[in-house]
Amino acid sequence: MSQPKSANITHQEACVTRVQREARLGQRGATVWLTGLSASGKSTVARLVDQALHQRGKHSCVLDGDNIRFGLNRDLGFSPEDRNENIRRIGEVAKLFAQTGTIALTAFISPYRGDRDRNRAINAEGDFIEVFLDCALDVCEKRDPRGLYAKARAGQIPEFTGVSAPYEAPKSPEIVLHTDREDEVGSAAQVVAYLEENGYLRAPSE
Amino acid sequence: MSQPKSANITHQEACVTRVQREARLGQRGATVWLTGLSASGKSTVARLVDQALHQRGKHSCVLDGDNIRFGLNRDLGFSPEDRNENIRRIGEVAKLFAQTGTIALTAFISPYRGDRDRNRAINAEGDFIEVFLDCALDVCEKRDPRGLYAKARAGQIPEFTGVSAPYEAPKSPEIVLHTDREDEVGSAAQVVAYLEENGYLRAPSE
Repeated sequence: MSQPKSANITHQEACVTRVQREARLGQRGATVWLTGLSASGKSTVARLVDQALHQRGKHSCVLDGDNIRFGLNRDLGFSPEDRNENIRRIGEVAKLFAQTGTIALTAFISPYRGDRDRNRAINAEGDFIEVFLDCALDVCEKRDPRGLYAKARAGQIPEFTGVSAPYEAPKSPEIVLHTDREDEVGSAAQVVAYLEENGYLRAPSE
Repeated sequence: MSQPKSANITHQEACVTRVQREARLGQRGATVWLTGLSASGKSTVARLVDQALHQRGKHSCVLDGDNIRFGLNRDLGFSPEDRNENIRRIGEVAKLFAQTGTIALTAFISPYRGDRDRNRAINAEGDFIEVFLDCALDVCEKRDPRGLYAKARAGQIPEFTGVSAPYEAPKSPEIVLHTDREDEVGSAAQVVAYLEENGYLRAPSE
């Protein structure tokens, strides 16, 4: 048997607890689940919150179509089963981040209440913060930055949320952002304020 | 339009880069992929490395059966396709952690070279560190902490790696740990030393 090369490594209590990680990071881990129609501003708000947290010395991440659809969920299409599985996996990954003390911001339409509630249910109380981007359909459709609504109206995208598939609004979200009347910067500031006021930006023992 | 509530939130460059996150954490993100037979010490070594990094003020996480098989990959069984998908997803999740600057330690048998090489291939050079826990089968079988080898020998577990299914050793792993002759504390210290010597424990700009 060789001797330990680092005095920092001992066999006792080899498991770093979540609270220890959170204390180190000076924050509490959580899933911040943004939901809303296409073009309601989810990715933009998530990135603005992420940026604001970084500037405050906090550790967060953004999970959105860019890094999930072409990676972890590249095997999934858009069938009902695959959409369901898409949201399930994202909820599990966000939970893994939260358990390491990270504030994980997710930005997916996630139109079904059941899918979102299931993701809430795998988390402890307070670990899942649902953020509803309440943006009128006509405003989203007018923005249409990627031309998706136009394609959906033309019948080129089947089962498009808000056009040919339902969006089930959250019943009791922690935060509601009116992104049709408030700009994304103001919306992001509301999320940061919620995190601040509810103790997510302090170490758990403080 | 409301005014921003926080002067820290601006629309410009809302994307926090990986390097900015790494600079904040004082380290470089990476996947540290531990592979080896059942009972070769993967989870223990991963947790010891995680602990040592935490004590040095670094941010890491452990992905292993405990938090993956009952969460993200609860839908997967042990068919060849499911084992393959299990390893693929873990590689993608570790990559997400690495991209946020975290050192992600994974502890799975991952017996197939092709699966591991595929996970390496989705990462940039230097982002995937393969750690081979080279432990003789008879030593693993003698340890058998969960009685799995006994069950496999009794025919109660089909396709058990090392008994009735192959283990394909890495050809060019970054690190080889001889966990049959060196204890887990010494093995963990070797991984930490590798990370130290190769700049993973410093901010990228230092």
